Amino acid sequence: MGFKEIEPSYKPLHPRPVYLIVSGRMGERLNVMAASWVMPVSEEPLRIAIAVERDAYTFDLIEEYGEFTVNVVDHRLIEKVWRAGTMSGRGRDKIREIGLELEDPLKTRVPGVREALAIIECKVWSHVDSGEVRLYVADVLSVRVKPEYYNERYGWDIRKANILMHLTGRAFTVPGKLLVVRRQ
Amino acid sequence: MGFKEIEPSYKPLHPRPVYLIVSGRMGERLNVMAASWVMPVSEEPLRIAIAVERDAYTFDLIEEYGEFTVNVVDHRLIEKVWRAGTMSGRGRDKIREIGLELEDPLKTRVPGVREALAIIECKVWSHVDSGEVRLYVADVLSVRVKPEYYNERYGWDIRKANILMHLTGRAFTVPGKLLVVRRQ
Repeated sequence: MGFKEIEPSYKPLHPRPVYLIVSGRMGERLNVMAASWVMPVSEEPLRIAIAVERDAYTFDLIEEYGEFTVNVVDHRLIEKVWRAGTMSGRGRDKIREIGLELEDPLKTRVPGVREALAIIECKVWSHVDSGEVRLYVADVLSVRVKPEYYNERYGWDIRKANILMHLTGRAFTVPGKLLVVRRQ
Repeated sequence: MGFKEIEPSYKPLHPRPVYLIVSGRMGERLNVMAASWVMPVSEEPLRIAIAVERDAYTFDLIEEYGEFTVNVVDHRLIEKVWRAGTMSGRGRDKIREIGLELEDPLKTRVPGVREALAIIECKVWSHVDSGEVRLYVADVLSVRVKPEYYNERYGWDIRKANILMHLTGRAFTVPGKLLVVRRQ
């Protein structure tokens, strides 16, 4: 069957990994949100990009403190990711309400999520405004992983690590079969 | 078990969807590459970001013509994606060598991939240079899908659409189980 033109939408670019983003500063203000519009940008130096709506509380905190963590999560955190993605942290202690435990930072002053599979500490380097969003490009200052799920050469062992990915709305998925391109 | 700090790496941000990117212009020069550092940026207007190494032939073509297509692919294209991601198109007809068929553009002058599940036509709007990469932010001008795999409300039906995702090197995956957050 052939193609059908549809109303332009981001949905054909999903599923993609969904992360918990922690912003703010230990001992001052902190927030968490869910985001799947996050990706690596360059390796030399290692930087990532993240799209944050300019009316989000996380935007205020990143503007104030310039740092955040990207927390890679698995299927066990689906309910917490859903809550992080559907309630605002403005004027409340969202991290406590959701019931997330925090892990102290190594190189910044913003914590990670203890239940995550990886914590990536980031510091804003540059940004571009596009529509309702500020696209941050950030330096990666540290990366921590739960080593039982991860191999430094190959990355996640998807037979063990059920990396959570977002489809749309309440629908998520995890990696399926491992497919390996055979050597010629 | 707790966290272990590792050498900073993009690998914890994979698996993520891998796309075929077609650049150039019909009747002039064309190329294809594989890319997984692609994401939506904003909805109003709909824009996407893509990281392109500045020594890639695709970079030359995007600089010259300012347009490209993002082609969403499934598991059946794994070998072609691998070849698109590991050979340069400079000085050769890479699209023909790989054996990809093209689909005429609707709103630009750069074709899509006929075997893809979706073709997204894009026009560069802005860019940021980071290390070895130019991060393009591009307007989405048209989106086409194979309708038997796609629902305009929910996006891909992952029971049918084996969206190809890249882990590292020769390792890929596809979506696994559908997980739905239950209503409270």
